[in-house]
Amino acid sequence: MGSIAPYERKHKVTVVGSGNWGCAIAKIVAENAAAYPNLFEEQVEMWVFEEKVEIPKDSRHYDPASPLCQGPQNLTEIINQTHENIKYLNGVTLPSNLHANPSLVDAVQNSTILVFNLPHQFIVRTCEQIKGKILPYARGVSCIKGVDVNGDGIHLFSETIGKTLGIYCGALSGANIANEVAREKWSESSIAYDPPHLDSKAPSPNRSSSSSTADVVHFEHKDVSGKFSDVKLQPLPTEYPPIDHAMWKTLFHRPYFHISVVSDVAGVSLSGALKNVVALAAGWVDGMGWGDNAKAAIMRVGLLEMVKFGERFFSATLDPRTFTEESAGVADLITSCSGGRNFRCAKLSVQRNQSIEEIEKSELNGQSLQGTLTAHEVNAFLKNQGAEDDFPLFTAVYRILSGNMSVAEIPSYIER
Amino acid sequence: MGSIAPYERKHKVTVVGSGNWGCAIAKIVAENAAAYPNLFEEQVEMWVFEEKVEIPKDSRHYDPASPLCQGPQNLTEIINQTHENIKYLNGVTLPSNLHANPSLVDAVQNSTILVFNLPHQFIVRTCEQIKGKILPYARGVSCIKGVDVNGDGIHLFSETIGKTLGIYCGALSGANIANEVAREKWSESSIAYDPPHLDSKAPSPNRSSSSSTADVVHFEHKDVSGKFSDVKLQPLPTEYPPIDHAMWKTLFHRPYFHISVVSDVAGVSLSGALKNVVALAAGWVDGMGWGDNAKAAIMRVGLLEMVKFGERFFSATLDPRTFTEESAGVADLITSCSGGRNFRCAKLSVQRNQSIEEIEKSELNGQSLQGTLTAHEVNAFLKNQGAEDDFPLFTAVYRILSGNMSVAEIPSYIER
Repeated sequence: MGSIAPYERKHKVTVVGSGNWGCAIAKIVAENAAAYPNLFEEQVEMWVFEEKVEIPKDSRHYDPASPLCQGPQNLTEIINQTHENIKYLNGVTLPSNLHANPSLVDAVQNSTILVFNLPHQFIVRTCEQIKGKILPYARGVSCIKGVDVNGDGIHLFSETIGKTLGIYCGALSGANIANEVAREKWSESSIAYDPPHLDSKAPSPNRSSSSSTADVVHFEHKDVSGKFSDVKLQPLPTEYPPIDHAMWKTLFHRPYFHISVVSDVAGVSLSGALKNVVALAAGWVDGMGWGDNAKAAIMRVGLLEMVKFGERFFSATLDPRTFTEESAGVADLITSCSGGRNFRCAKLSVQRNQSIEEIEKSELNGQSLQGTLTAHEVNAFLKNQGAEDDFPLFTAVYRILSGNMSVAEIPSYIER
Repeated sequence: MGSIAPYERKHKVTVVGSGNWGCAIAKIVAENAAAYPNLFEEQVEMWVFEEKVEIPKDSRHYDPASPLCQGPQNLTEIINQTHENIKYLNGVTLPSNLHANPSLVDAVQNSTILVFNLPHQFIVRTCEQIKGKILPYARGVSCIKGVDVNGDGIHLFSETIGKTLGIYCGALSGANIANEVAREKWSESSIAYDPPHLDSKAPSPNRSSSSSTADVVHFEHKDVSGKFSDVKLQPLPTEYPPIDHAMWKTLFHRPYFHISVVSDVAGVSLSGALKNVVALAAGWVDGMGWGDNAKAAIMRVGLLEMVKFGERFFSATLDPRTFTEESAGVADLITSCSGGRNFRCAKLSVQRNQSIEEIEKSELNGQSLQGTLTAHEVNAFLKNQGAEDDFPLFTAVYRILSGNMSVAEIPSYIER
């Protein structure tokens, strides 16, 4: 893509969210908006939750004479003047065509492409605020890792967004530590996008068979989350370049950020959740001093259970190759079991002989680990399905967290 | 298995080789021979290349009054008296039913099960020495990692053994650091066994569809190594318990060593070779300080090329799931890219800005890394097949080793 047939209109892109990962993604998107002026409006909006921030004296942007440095200032002003989010992505220069906007509604107005990148607990209330105020034919991609699991079903965050806003939303996930991506250290990522009909007939760069047949998004996966009402999609007006796999690659691919676009939204999203459960087990085993063989064994068994979980509960749309071939799958699992938060805290809990809760208190200021939440949610779901025994590693993690099993029992528990 | 229908004869098991990994495997096999007296003769033979060894003063076996400690003694005597291979697996007690035998021919005589575990450069000359002196209906398993690649073909070590001896030989490989296995730290391994007809009709524990149809072993993989002559197998006499997947699991599975038995000998063997090429790239990238994202990306791309290589050149028998599901595949890849020799030396070569040859000199006393040998061999083979461009990571590794590419160019070179 890049030089393209002349369309009357260009895409306006907005990033919703401006934390560590939000800014790293906004930087990429703004770089590509500037690189492909035929496709995108140059200015990319980024919604910033406004707060007062003081530029510290050791910042390269500190200048005692500057009005910006006279006490706390709006974060958006600091970003727009220094091109740096000194609070959440310190030391990284953002593109000058990235505009920090404190108004959520203003930021998303007239945007055809919405990139969601904010903590998952804010998704619903943020979407509620812009419902009806976005273009009805906008398309979205969610960079929020994981899924929302509870006893009665599994809901993808991209679905929650799409359902609330009445648009189609895909997902981006991969082995992406935000600070490394922001510093342009090479990495890869996966984008999953599979609307009822792709907005173009252009061939997609990767496998992309759409499993849907009408222009209605069915928010259901077998019997799992069928309670969602379906959403009728508005077609993208033909004045715009089509939003298809090639378009997503153009918007996100950089020399330091390699993108693969697939159709398996469920697989990409599930990987990002389930790998955290595996990372807990890998951390415990590593904490026991069992060495690299044992850690690799946990990762292998975990990968198999991830595939099995996807195939069992998302059989309608899921492609098991997502887990074994995509950055969102095996690569993200590897990264998470190398130095991720869940891995590190689990390892510490064995080394210090403390519970995960104690580690969360001492290491994370009482914040909960994503893996422990997901392990509980997945277990409630598996219990409901009568399938605990078919996922012995996931079940072992839950039992250890609940104090009903010791780490030393893992090998015999998962032995087949 | 374990308690079994009454067969007239038991299997005699011999381990050919007694290095670090050889002793770790012999320990396992001897433990199981003792545990299943209905199936196996209690005494397990281990062929030891005889050498003179002195028990050091800090050994727990040092006793100035003992005849064993009066100067250098035969290694076999030390092993048989102390039940420890103080030279190659110091500190680990071997089972008392494991007998160290300095005579290769005597050790293998009358054995129905031969376990080969010696450095690959000794395979051919060792097999030549026992050719015609083993039971014609013996069965083997090779614990030697990797394959023998050259311009005109790829030969599995299990095939080389089988062809030389006129028997069928399978392969064992997995994420197995010998010292960790010997110390009973939990790990997993894969055994691949697929004779023309399994010696029993008993159901195998894993997928085990045999791709062969007659009782002749065809030593060929498409057009790759078809020059081998075929071997007519001798059936195992019915007085013996059948040697099938269940039997191999009984002989090798331990609470700390979990075995999965499959039929894909080529996949299990290829993984063990190709992962070393990937580990070099992972080490370089890690040495660059590119972080965990980049390292995971290399491993993902490497795994894909391993699968593609297997599917392309061993399509007749290979099951791609071996790479993504087995310990011999993805788990061994992970272990090798965590702390393996190839990984560590490649990382050092970037950090110290020295060539791999210099690192081999300073760190390995001039020994060659397995990965550098395999990278050259694989490249010669790919060139011959006109397939270099289809394996950009393998080709990049070769080009970097040859001084025709820099590590910094890897991302753009493998970009699709």
